[in-house]
Amino acid sequence: MKTTARLNINCVDKPGLVAEFTSLLFERRLNITGLDQYSTAPEDGHFFLRLEFQVSSDLNSKATIRDLLLKKATSLGIDCCQVRFSDEKRKTAILASRTEHAPLELLWRWRNGELNTDITMVISNHETLREHVERAGIPFHWVPVTPDTKPQSEAKILELLDGQADLVVLARYMQILSPEFVAQFPNRMINIHHSFLPAFMGANPYGRAHERGVKIIGATAHYVTSDLDEGPIIEQGVARVSHRDTVAELKRRGRDIEREVLARAVSWHLDDRVLVHGNKTVVFS
Amino acid sequence: MKTTARLNINCVDKPGLVAEFTSLLFERRLNITGLDQYSTAPEDGHFFLRLEFQVSSDLNSKATIRDLLLKKATSLGIDCCQVRFSDEKRKTAILASRTEHAPLELLWRWRNGELNTDITMVISNHETLREHVERAGIPFHWVPVTPDTKPQSEAKILELLDGQADLVVLARYMQILSPEFVAQFPNRMINIHHSFLPAFMGANPYGRAHERGVKIIGATAHYVTSDLDEGPIIEQGVARVSHRDTVAELKRRGRDIEREVLARAVSWHLDDRVLVHGNKTVVFS
Amino acid sequence: MKTTARLNINCVDKPGLVAEFTSLLFERRLNITGLDQYSTAPEDGHFFLRLEFQVSSDLNSKATIRDLLLKKATSLGIDCCQVRFSDEKRKTAILASRTEHAPLELLWRWRNGELNTDITMVISNHETLREHVERAGIPFHWVPVTPDTKPQSEAKILELLDGQADLVVLARYMQILSPEFVAQFPNRMINIHHSFLPAFMGANPYGRAHERGVKIIGATAHYVTSDLDEGPIIEQGVARVSHRDTVAELKRRGRDIEREVLARAVSWHLDDRVLVHGNKTVVFS
Amino acid sequence: MKTTARLNINCVDKPGLVAEFTSLLFERRLNITGLDQYSTAPEDGHFFLRLEFQVSSDLNSKATIRDLLLKKATSLGIDCCQVRFSDEKRKTAILASRTEHAPLELLWRWRNGELNTDITMVISNHETLREHVERAGIPFHWVPVTPDTKPQSEAKILELLDGQADLVVLARYMQILSPEFVAQFPNRMINIHHSFLPAFMGANPYGRAHERGVKIIGATAHYVTSDLDEGPIIEQGVARVSHRDTVAELKRRGRDIEREVLARAVSWHLDDRVLVHGNKTVVFS
Repeated sequence: MKTTARLNINCVDKPGLVAEFTSLLFERRLNITGLDQYSTAPEDGHFFLRLEFQVSSDLNSKATIRDLLLKKATSLGIDCCQVRFSDEKRKTAILASRTEHAPLELLWRWRNGELNTDITMVISNHETLREHVERAGIPFHWVPVTPDTKPQSEAKILELLDGQADLVVLARYMQILSPEFVAQFPNRMINIHHSFLPAFMGANPYGRAHERGVKIIGATAHYVTSDLDEGPIIEQGVARVSHRDTVAELKRRGRDIEREVLARAVSWHLDDRVLVHGNKTVVFS
Repeated sequence: MKTTARLNINCVDKPGLVAEFTSLLFERRLNITGLDQYSTAPEDGHFFLRLEFQVSSDLNSKATIRDLLLKKATSLGIDCCQVRFSDEKRKTAILASRTEHAPLELLWRWRNGELNTDITMVISNHETLREHVERAGIPFHWVPVTPDTKPQSEAKILELLDGQADLVVLARYMQILSPEFVAQFPNRMINIHHSFLPAFMGANPYGRAHERGVKIIGATAHYVTSDLDEGPIIEQGVARVSHRDTVAELKRRGRDIEREVLARAVSWHLDDRVLVHGNKTVVFS
Repeated sequence: MKTTARLNINCVDKPGLVAEFTSLLFERRLNITGLDQYSTAPEDGHFFLRLEFQVSSDLNSKATIRDLLLKKATSLGIDCCQVRFSDEKRKTAILASRTEHAPLELLWRWRNGELNTDITMVISNHETLREHVERAGIPFHWVPVTPDTKPQSEAKILELLDGQADLVVLARYMQILSPEFVAQFPNRMINIHHSFLPAFMGANPYGRAHERGVKIIGATAHYVTSDLDEGPIIEQGVARVSHRDTVAELKRRGRDIEREVLARAVSWHLDDRVLVHGNKTVVFS
Repeated sequence: MKTTARLNINCVDKPGLVAEFTSLLFERRLNITGLDQYSTAPEDGHFFLRLEFQVSSDLNSKATIRDLLLKKATSLGIDCCQVRFSDEKRKTAILASRTEHAPLELLWRWRNGELNTDITMVISNHETLREHVERAGIPFHWVPVTPDTKPQSEAKILELLDGQADLVVLARYMQILSPEFVAQFPNRMINIHHSFLPAFMGANPYGRAHERGVKIIGATAHYVTSDLDEGPIIEQGVARVSHRDTVAELKRRGRDIEREVLARAVSWHLDDRVLVHGNKTVVFS
């Protein structure tokens, strides 16, 4: 039995990196089935690699090749090297509020086999999604938030997520999380913002888009950082609108964009297609 | 011989407006070939109408129907009513700088019969476009601008435009025009901004888009007001980009979007498809 | 209490049609909130009108205005005139097979208030969707089909639909319906075809798209006629693909297009935005 | 002085191909600045590689590395291996008819530095483009074609192209070329077809698209083979249309799509981004 392995390298560029890793795999007679490479500049740039190869799925084979690749990386002075196997599913937790299109879309795609992950839970500050979530066989946790109880609520959420969330998805979660909370999930927390960032950062983007009279609206999936709506952008999508569209209609059409954009971003993250560099992403989609 | 007439109404809504004008045309046995109507609200809203009908192209017939429609509008208390005939071409002047894709695209489409206008001149603060423009049989005026001579330059441009410009198109004209200049062409001066407004207002939008790591870039055609990059948006367009795209590549791809978006905006304006309301447009495209 | 009324006219063009109907509404002091008009030619063309206006929702007011409009149409020799009220929901039945994305998308949008209809039932030749459908509170009927039992199955379906289906949606229903069946629902049966028609008519479009190496795939919603995949097209959508996409990946991405395109087509039909003329549609979207 | 070198490999897959070539470049201390790889299957598939690296631009250095790479390819049993240098411009000839948007767009982009080629000539069966072409400093050849003189015309064209055309672009050239002619330029002749192939193959695609009532139109750039409109597709583009669009309007909007799609296809070909396999392309865009 074979599984797909993925090597990600994200380091200062130096000559021979592709040759080093592909030669190592060739020596082990491992078949490369995907290779994406990018450097920010011909000289003195930053280097990004995603290598996909087939490997026996037994634990021993996987541990061996992982060790070899990590050792090779160390010997080359690379500190950001990651090896993952598609048969070792990571855990995803979803945070949501009342709005249902974003979390339900993720559940639907997960059930259809489009998201390579285990969804460990949905946490919401409202009870409205419970039935949908539990029907899908996923634990639902209600963690209400008030201005006074915010620290306790975050503590409660962190406790629930402890060991259960390699990835946290904010699927239209309408609470602003503290920098301390965000710091727990560097490049592992994805938010969907309902505008074409950096346009209409902050609250009420569809209302402000309507006010400004734009002819195209959008949505943006990004990693969450302590700077609100400023984290590395993973994916964006847009749709044409016209003077006829009310704010309510913009919201309705925005839902369709948000569903698609968030699903793509989460799927790419889970397939190790997104590498972060400073405040930007390299997406090998 | 027939020509196409266009009636535009832009006023406070009241019952019966469509009936009034369509009945008047029916009584004259004039054939309506296009009708677009929009109200901002079911009650107490603002009303927009574009009526296209066929009329004899002799001056008498046109004057008669124009008078009838304007009188009808007056009798209904409508102050914003416009009647135009497609065989009475308006005059368009283009302002440009060194960048050639935007002005050349307009000239190309004009030569192909896609823009219903006479292009009376191209004015530039550089000489680089002269040959292209004069080959197309259009007068070219070089009006250099320095920080010190800006008022004189604007005066010179105004003099050139006097009576020669029903529409002014800023086809990547890289000088900021004074509020006094802008005020001469209310809803008659179109600019193409090289970003997806309101993102990246101001200078160097492609550089800032690259810096922010957006996945989609855009361009915006808008009427110029004294608030820089804040005027009513007529049309926008976008294109997907990736981490691989340098600033130079964003600019190159942006050129394609700018060409298209500006051409559509100018064409719609010339066909009386754009009605302005506050800082927004109604576009009957 | 007000409701929205919609008048649709679809007839040979003649002068004054817009004036006649808008004047009638004006005389009754009924407020027009939407007007779309189209003629296929300036002279001797075909005329299409969609008028949206506000009317008291009591039965008496609605019956009165309906009568007036129908009489006016008759007096003008128009035979194709329709008056509908948005508070009188029509009935929609969905036919599906094993594939779940299309029927579930419709149920999801219906539940979100995006489809102005009552969904009376889902009929399938497989049991797989039962749980989803019944959870949504909608009757599910299993009507298996084999080559031998096709006539009986169709009879059974017709019996179920009798009086319960103003609109029938084939949401990836994988059986070909007989011309006799189709004839029961002229311009009232919508199918989603998983290709960009007329490319790849018939079976296995994604496989054939892959074989041909196209760079864009699509989906098409159309009214069903007795000519397979030849009925009037209501809406189409596309997505870019590349050499990297396997047939399975084309199918996965196609699902997203199909969901959107079918939802738009059904929504527009239910809002009386689709007028059929010969084998083409006029869509006032 | 450095130039960019491009290695293309197109062969039956076998393990270690990436390692072999990247190691060879690493040993010579040549810096890889781009790498795209694709295999049609994990086992027994077909392998495609595009390697971009920097090399000294003197003739000696280029000859040396070319030899090394070709020898390596031979030693690995690879017969389809190509090494090109971006400072060695290839020659492009354009065939056109009366329609000017496609050839002029290519000339415009070439003048803007977007096409890495020398345009050696424009050949047309009409005189209409002469002035435009000669102004751009490019030789123009008028080769009229009648049903009777077709063989002679083709012979004349072949004579003109002899040694002057690494790439032939049919920029809306309205004559069907004989299989013998086509055979001279395998995977080196690009055509722009004015439909979304395989829909509306053959003549009058916009008329037939209008007739069918499609909601999206398109254009397709493909390599020319002896099977008309059946060659490997390089790129496609689309635009939304509606019932309001006449055939003339479809043609006008189609021109915009054709310009873009053809420009992209030619640009990618010239950058060695298009690899042909059977009747399909791998495009490393």
